[in-house]
Amino acid sequence: MSARILIVDDIEANRKLLAAKLEAQYHTVLLAENGPQALEIAKAKDPEIILLDVMMPGMDGYEVCRRLKADPVTNHIPVVMVTALSDTEDRVRGLDAGAEDFLTKPIDDFVLNSRVNALIRYNTVTSELRQREASGIRAGAMESVDPEEVDRPARVFVIDDNPRTSARIAGILRDAGHKVMTLLEAGDMGELATERTDVLLLSLLSKSFDPLKLCAHFKSNDVTRAVSILLVCDPLERARAVKGMEIGASDMIMAPIDRQELLARIRTQTRRTRYVEILRERVDRGLELSVIDQLTGLYNRRYMNNQLQQLMHRAVMGGKPLSVMMLDIDHFKPINDTHGHQAGDEVLQELADRLRQNIRPMDVACRPGGEEFLVILPETPGELAMAAAERVRRAIAAEPFLVMSDTKSIKVTVSAGVSSLLGPHDTIADMMKRADTALYQAKSGGRNRVESIAA
Amino acid sequence: MSARILIVDDIEANRKLLAAKLEAQYHTVLLAENGPQALEIAKAKDPEIILLDVMMPGMDGYEVCRRLKADPVTNHIPVVMVTALSDTEDRVRGLDAGAEDFLTKPIDDFVLNSRVNALIRYNTVTSELRQREASGIRAGAMESVDPEEVDRPARVFVIDDNPRTSARIAGILRDAGHKVMTLLEAGDMGELATERTDVLLLSLLSKSFDPLKLCAHFKSNDVTRAVSILLVCDPLERARAVKGMEIGASDMIMAPIDRQELLARIRTQTRRTRYVEILRERVDRGLELSVIDQLTGLYNRRYMNNQLQQLMHRAVMGGKPLSVMMLDIDHFKPINDTHGHQAGDEVLQELADRLRQNIRPMDVACRPGGEEFLVILPETPGELAMAAAERVRRAIAAEPFLVMSDTKSIKVTVSAGVSSLLGPHDTIADMMKRADTALYQAKSGGRNRVESIAA
Repeated sequence: MSARILIVDDIEANRKLLAAKLEAQYHTVLLAENGPQALEIAKAKDPEIILLDVMMPGMDGYEVCRRLKADPVTNHIPVVMVTALSDTEDRVRGLDAGAEDFLTKPIDDFVLNSRVNALIRYNTVTSELRQREASGIRAGAMESVDPEEVDRPARVFVIDDNPRTSARIAGILRDAGHKVMTLLEAGDMGELATERTDVLLLSLLSKSFDPLKLCAHFKSNDVTRAVSILLVCDPLERARAVKGMEIGASDMIMAPIDRQELLARIRTQTRRTRYVEILRERVDRGLELSVIDQLTGLYNRRYMNNQLQQLMHRAVMGGKPLSVMMLDIDHFKPINDTHGHQAGDEVLQELADRLRQNIRPMDVACRPGGEEFLVILPETPGELAMAAAERVRRAIAAEPFLVMSDTKSIKVTVSAGVSSLLGPHDTIADMMKRADTALYQAKSGGRNRVESIAA
Repeated sequence: MSARILIVDDIEANRKLLAAKLEAQYHTVLLAENGPQALEIAKAKDPEIILLDVMMPGMDGYEVCRRLKADPVTNHIPVVMVTALSDTEDRVRGLDAGAEDFLTKPIDDFVLNSRVNALIRYNTVTSELRQREASGIRAGAMESVDPEEVDRPARVFVIDDNPRTSARIAGILRDAGHKVMTLLEAGDMGELATERTDVLLLSLLSKSFDPLKLCAHFKSNDVTRAVSILLVCDPLERARAVKGMEIGASDMIMAPIDRQELLARIRTQTRRTRYVEILRERVDRGLELSVIDQLTGLYNRRYMNNQLQQLMHRAVMGGKPLSVMMLDIDHFKPINDTHGHQAGDEVLQELADRLRQNIRPMDVACRPGGEEFLVILPETPGELAMAAAERVRRAIAAEPFLVMSDTKSIKVTVSAGVSSLLGPHDTIADMMKRADTALYQAKSGGRNRVESIAA
């Protein structure tokens, strides 16, 4: 897949060389000669990847990286540091500054392409989620992800058939506060699936199983696909690591493993996994909230109408009964007027709690609005619905409601109207109208009572 | 990226050959010997791609494909038909049955890999959206996408420097009801960006520009990335088409173009683009709905609290005023009791309409619940807020509300309380409390009036 890649280097020959390599793979290249220019272009053109030279006069690469990562407009763009020396300290400084990865000059074409492709793949997944997040934020339904939220101890699964290196890696990670599981052979991976795992550290030096096959297995399995794979590879067998990245691994580290580099790479991968997780949770939570009444946590009118349709359909198909109970708080207005809105809100909340405690898990409790509540009772004939409504009514009338930090005790009662589906030709509107009429009878009959209308 | 691929073929040697090719690329392979088995495995194992032999005893490939596409559990899985003959009729029958693509035996490794990779890429984008859709459906916040919705005339952009073939392609597409734009050279693509385009038909036979570069350009540009690219290629230059697919093209068709095949491929690509579009719209809409009050279309309490925070922050930062107006319908309960809930709901809706018509676009109108409304007035001092509330009050009291299909005319009034931010140390809670007190004064002062509390 083609990408828009920003190259930042103060030396023209370097820019040209790198641009030629990337253009040969049909990427679109943007160029910057120094740090400030890089920041400007990154903001204006939103490149998908930034290849950032470390050694530049004026603002150096680390500083550019830190600024990119500190700006909400650019902090999602993966940065690959390009270092002249294969010095571990350089690498770690870059990763510490927030870079996702680094490349060593002279740049190996295979390594360049596999790193770029892995980042493009990562972008494909996140960009969809980021777009949804942006929509959610625009709509006022979501807040943006705080970078702080993505830092946390990782859960790492180490698969290496060499007990010595495996133990060393586990030691390094545990000392840094991460949770580690080790596996010496490609045996039962059940645990990977059952508990949340951030990174799978897979040694390509393992001989007792085929690590690339294992990598493929994880990436072609729905449950384990989301786990980032970090490959440990022999510097002389770089081609295998490149193959592993093609298969779906996210990153690689050369053996023998440098402690700081390992920790930095684990942190980057964990952050990514966590970032995607948080985005998913937010979008899902946003969708859930669209059917929840915020004050009481019960379902809202939208969900109620939706569920009535579905449960009515199911009842008619299955020849099963369906009932509804409509509840209305007696004399609610005076509660608000006498004790204030805050007290009124707490009454609604307490009522929702009592309602929840006195219905079955299969029943759908909704607050379509105001002081009105509706419970949908699937597979429930009229008599049982009447009994259920009576139970709810009693639970509410039994004890006064304690509100405003228990400073006020308010006696609350409800009136209820019950109705049931009369057959395949009955409609939701008619059933609801009967419940409404029954509720009206309960009100005019003296309140704090349950009535039903059979037909 | 590794994928889980189901091979369906009645001949063992064929299954083995194809499995070996795919496993060499580290894909995970599932096998089925006949149609019924294929349907069962597709349901149980949810493969990412299905390679489906056409000629099988019993249920043939077309039938299997139709059933896969008719089942909501499996209809998202891309199906590639494998035909023994390069017969156009076979291809078209497969595409008509809903297949995404086809391969001709003997299978060319390059073509196989590029098709498989293009489908994996497509899956990566859609799977994220499908997961969010599934969450939304589970939460009751969304309905699933109806396959019917994705069929529609396409908007196709044809880029081919040969006027004769370009005109022929355009003719075929127009006759089938599609909208077509043709471009003989890689000139101004502005229109592609401004109007929604489903498919870009790009001829690799063009000599006056580099079609692969153009393909890369489209795929590395945010605005045009979502557009599917269908490459027209010379059968003798298949490697270029494979490169184009690597760059990001979705599909290829051999020149000279067969009419029916062209139409079938355009339809498949259009469906995909549309499917992704619909999923995005649904998720975004779901998120929007989480802040909207369903009955009136005003913002709900959740959004109100969120916006109060933000606007308060902005007001304090910018040293600008901020006011709120709290509205409550006078004697709403009797309206419900006398005219029924339906009439009451219509009153709330009409009131929301009048409210919307009498405030500025920058004002935020909310219905936190019941018969209460709140308008946030950014950059507005108290006197202006009072005047605005007075305008709203008059607009409501001026004409009775016509509800229940204009059969009932109800006189409605509101009482309003206005308050303003007092300075950087003021809080939202205090400002709201003052508005509440002012509202109470308006009520006790005789209703249908506006009051304010300065401090």
